[in-house]
Order: sequence, then C-alpha cells, then structure tokens
Amino acid sequence: MTQQRFSGVLAPAVTPFRHDLSPAPERFAHHARWLLANGCTGLAVFGTNSEANSLSVEERISLLEFLVEHGVSAGALMPGTGCCALSDSVRLTAHAVQLGCGGVLMLPPFYYKAVSDEGLFRNFSEIIERVGDARLRLYLYHIPPVTQVPLSLGLIERLLKRYPGTVAGVKDSSGDWSNTKAMLEEFADAGFDVFVGSEVFLLDNMRHAGVGCISATANVNPARIRHLYENWRAPDADSVQQEITATRAVVQKHPMIAALKATVAYYGQDPEWSTVRPPLVELTDVQQRTLIADLDARGFEMPGLSARRT
Amino acid sequence: MTQQRFSGVLAPAVTPFRHDLSPAPERFAHHARWLLANGCTGLAVFGTNSEANSLSVEERISLLEFLVEHGVSAGALMPGTGCCALSDSVRLTAHAVQLGCGGVLMLPPFYYKAVSDEGLFRNFSEIIERVGDARLRLYLYHIPPVTQVPLSLGLIERLLKRYPGTVAGVKDSSGDWSNTKAMLEEFADAGFDVFVGSEVFLLDNMRHAGVGCISATANVNPARIRHLYENWRAPDADSVQQEITATRAVVQKHPMIAALKATVAYYGQDPEWSTVRPPLVELTDVQQRTLIADLDARGFEMPGLSARRT
Repeated sequence: MTQQRFSGVLAPAVTPFRHDLSPAPERFAHHARWLLANGCTGLAVFGTNSEANSLSVEERISLLEFLVEHGVSAGALMPGTGCCALSDSVRLTAHAVQLGCGGVLMLPPFYYKAVSDEGLFRNFSEIIERVGDARLRLYLYHIPPVTQVPLSLGLIERLLKRYPGTVAGVKDSSGDWSNTKAMLEEFADAGFDVFVGSEVFLLDNMRHAGVGCISATANVNPARIRHLYENWRAPDADSVQQEITATRAVVQKHPMIAALKATVAYYGQDPEWSTVRPPLVELTDVQQRTLIADLDARGFEMPGLSARRT
Repeated sequence: MTQQRFSGVLAPAVTPFRHDLSPAPERFAHHARWLLANGCTGLAVFGTNSEANSLSVEERISLLEFLVEHGVSAGALMPGTGCCALSDSVRLTAHAVQLGCGGVLMLPPFYYKAVSDEGLFRNFSEIIERVGDARLRLYLYHIPPVTQVPLSLGLIERLLKRYPGTVAGVKDSSGDWSNTKAMLEEFADAGFDVFVGSEVFLLDNMRHAGVGCISATANVNPARIRHLYENWRAPDADSVQQEITATRAVVQKHPMIAALKATVAYYGQDPEWSTVRPPLVELTDVQQRTLIADLDARGFEMPGLSARRT
C-alpha cells in the first residue's frame, strides 16, 4: 500500500453490467484506465455511483482484483468497503489492504436508523482492530441523503483521536457546505483530508484547506475538474468552477447513475454500458436524447474513450 | 417446501452472538425450538430484529442450515432473503427454497432511496425468475421506517398479477394501520396473506381477514400472542389485546433488539445473549434493571427457557 495520501480528483467509477446483469470486468478496467489517463488522480471504485451495494462481496473482490491485474495501480484505488454487516466490511477492507490499495472509503452500516455514535464508533473500531494492518488508510463516507445515517463531528473526533494516521479523511456527500466547512475547521489541521462529494464545491473546498473531490461526474468530465483542481489559485478559477458546475447540472437533470452510464455508452460507442442493476432503471430514450443533446451543445467530449475497447 | 401457507404468530428470531461477535448457532437453535414449543407457529429468522443485515450471506446460510439440522422444521421457517445486491438475494432465496423453507420474507433493496416502482418490480421479478422454483412462496417485507423504501399498493398489484401463487403475502411493519387495511381490502381476497408487523394490530388484522403477525415481541411473549391469535373471536379478545400490547410497551421503552436480547439473557439465565453487533449497543445496566423490574411486575415469565441449554 502506497503511503502517499490521496488528493485531487477521484471518480466513484461506474460499474458496467452486461445485458444479463453480470459485471463486465473488461469494460470496467477499460473505463478505469481511461479515467486515470484523462484527469483522475485516483478511483473510488465501489461508491454510491458504482452501484457497489448492488454487488455481492465476491463480485466486488473479483472486480477489484481484475483492475489490479489489468493495468490499474492498486495505490490509485480507494474502494468502498463499508457494508451493513461487520463481517463483510472486515473482509473487504482486509482484502483491499492486502491488495495494496491506497485507502478505503467506508460507509457506516446503513440498515438501522437513529443509531448512536457509540454504536457507529464500535463499528469502525472493530473493523480497524480486526483488519489490524498499519497500512490501512480509512476515509469515512458521509452521505446522509442516501444512508440516512450521518457521521457526526463528535464521532469523527473520537475516531481521529483513537486511530490517528489510520482515519485519514472523509468524503462529504451531505451536499451541505456548512457541514464540510465545519469538518475542515475542526480536523484539517490534524491531517484529516476532506474531499467534497461534488465538484460543485471543489473551489470552496480548496480555498478552505480541503484536498479535492470524489465526484460522480468525474466519471465523464475528469479533465476539466482536474484542471480546476490544479489551477484553483488561477484568476479564472471561478469561471472554470461555473463551467464544470454547469456540465454537472446537465447530467444531474436525470437520475445520476443511469445518466453517467448513458454518457459513457454514447461517447464510448458501447450501448451495453447503459445497463443498471435493479432497483435502478436506465434512462428512457427521451431522457437519453435530451442528455446527449445538452452535452453536445456544451461541446462536451470524452476523447479516446471508444478506442482500444477490450 | 411445504405448500401449507403460514398463519398465526411468527417471531423474527433474535440472533445470538458470542462476546467476540461471532454467531452462536447452538443458542440460536435452542431459542428457535423454544419459540416453536411455546406459541410460535413459525419463525421469520433473519428479520430486522434478527440483525440479519449485520450478518454476511455465508453466516446466514450457515445458521439456517444449522437450525434445520438441529430440530427445526424447514417448513416452519420464513427466512429474510432480501438484500441490497440482487446477486445476494437470489443466492439466499434459492438456498432457502432448496432447504425446504416454507417461504421467504423479502426486503426491497434498501441502499438507494426514492427508487421507482419499475425498479423495485424488476428487482423482485429478477429474483423470482432466477430462482425459478415453483415451490417459492415470497412474502414482501414493507418496513419504511427502517428501509426508507416503501412498497406501494401499485407495486404489490403488479407483482401479484405477474406471479400469482409465488407472491404469497406481506409483513406490514409500517406501523400505519390504514396502510394495512388498504392492503387487506385490495388483496386479501386474491389469497394475499397479510401479517401485521406488531401484535398491537393483531386483533384488528384478524377482524379484517388478516392471517396473523410477525412481531419482535413474539421472541419473548409468544404464548399470550398465540392465545389471542387462537381466540380472537372470544368475548375477552379486546382485553387480551390490551394485555399483550401493554407487555410490548414495557419492552419498547428501550431499543427493541437490545431489549429482546436482554430479556432472553435474563429469563434464560444466559448473560452472553445480551450481545449485539455494531452499530447496535446493548442496554445499559439501568435500562436492563428497569426492563426486568417492569416485566417482573407484570408477572412475566419465559417458562423452560433456561433448561436444556446446549
């Protein structure tokens, strides 16, 4: 496991399925390599937008190994490993560490609601203790709109105090800048790396000592988001922020995951990419035409995506 | 798989863990046999109160097989088999059918929120088609306070129409009697069996053509709940309903799962039973003393539970 910390632009890489809903590992590796060659500094595979929770533990293990065996550096990978079952989280996290992944992005267990900070602390603590590997870099995944299980500042403080060095940062997908700002103010000085969960907040995050973004739309627009990350101090940073925010808005008019996959399918000339697992559904024809027309109108492109497909 | 339909009182059997958080199969089988000998007509193992989603797929498979190998009739079992991942739901459901289970209780995939009825229909449909076994009896598990993913009347109608005989009924844990009543009015005539998710609604359910309850508190109070089920037409039914509702209220003052386990631990003289997996936490000493004092004051007992423990 590389001990260099993540920063920059990470994509929660979308996971391709064949028409029969089985994972398509070759497409997955192709997309992963394209992302890393076109702006992403790392890949938060098995995030929300990866339909990770629609995959079994075995499917996740198998796909992760396939990436590493097919040209993706393990150090660039931050797989999601937080499950409802402690036993699954331990297994996936230990596997990721052993594979050399640069970190893991960890959801809280999300079935029970209104659980206590004590219960959540025990969950993360048990995972860290059972994995028992100093190479582990754990990024907390705060996404209350989906999990309905928020990670409080008090919980983060307790985890940081108990596991400094291991608890490495957070992806804040609350969509609430005041929450991100509070995390930055409280913990950034202690070496806690804050990623925003949407590039809409990238410039704000960089201006407040954040380290980057892990964003759905980085699946399709990695180069321009990376450009802002690299040039956030430049005089035109606000206008670049406006531009990438506008591109995101075009995608976000539609259900996000289906829209990302439709975009990859279209610009990669690979229609099967549109496939999603239930309970998600693919875009309708009308939605897809609207999406592509809106993107084309913005001069959007994904150069080289359709080439060298395996 | 027995083709006799479930009715009566089913317990979502609590799952015992050792202090090291590993499942304790002997305790599980002992509790299961006690429940069936003391009032339960069946066991909805791996429900919400079983901490099912805190178990891996392998742990669930292993515990289910242990029950069947240790004196529990497969036909009396309605294991929970609905997961976030389609592949997991298919695997657990196929396993339950092959083992001869009388039915399965199926959560919708619960990670993504605000999913469409079309997406949920595809989820259940894919599972039924992939399991592909006429013995499958599928009970839908509607528990929006926890999943945040409700099962609409429109969805149920569509599933019943497409898979009559297979889609066998529902556990309604909405806690909303008007929803239960709507399900009964719409679908009971079509052979759709409605269980309420709490014995608080048992008498109402029986009076409106429901078939019983699948209730947390049946883990500790199965005999009296069964008594009401058998005698719901008796003149004193309302007072029996009040009595079992009052017993439930004593337990429900506390976090339910921890309270059930504390009760089994105390009356079974087996302290390790109190163990829960994170993110849940066991009752505090004060909570536990209050719970037991309140139960004792009601003359509550669990006869024979502590005997013959393996």
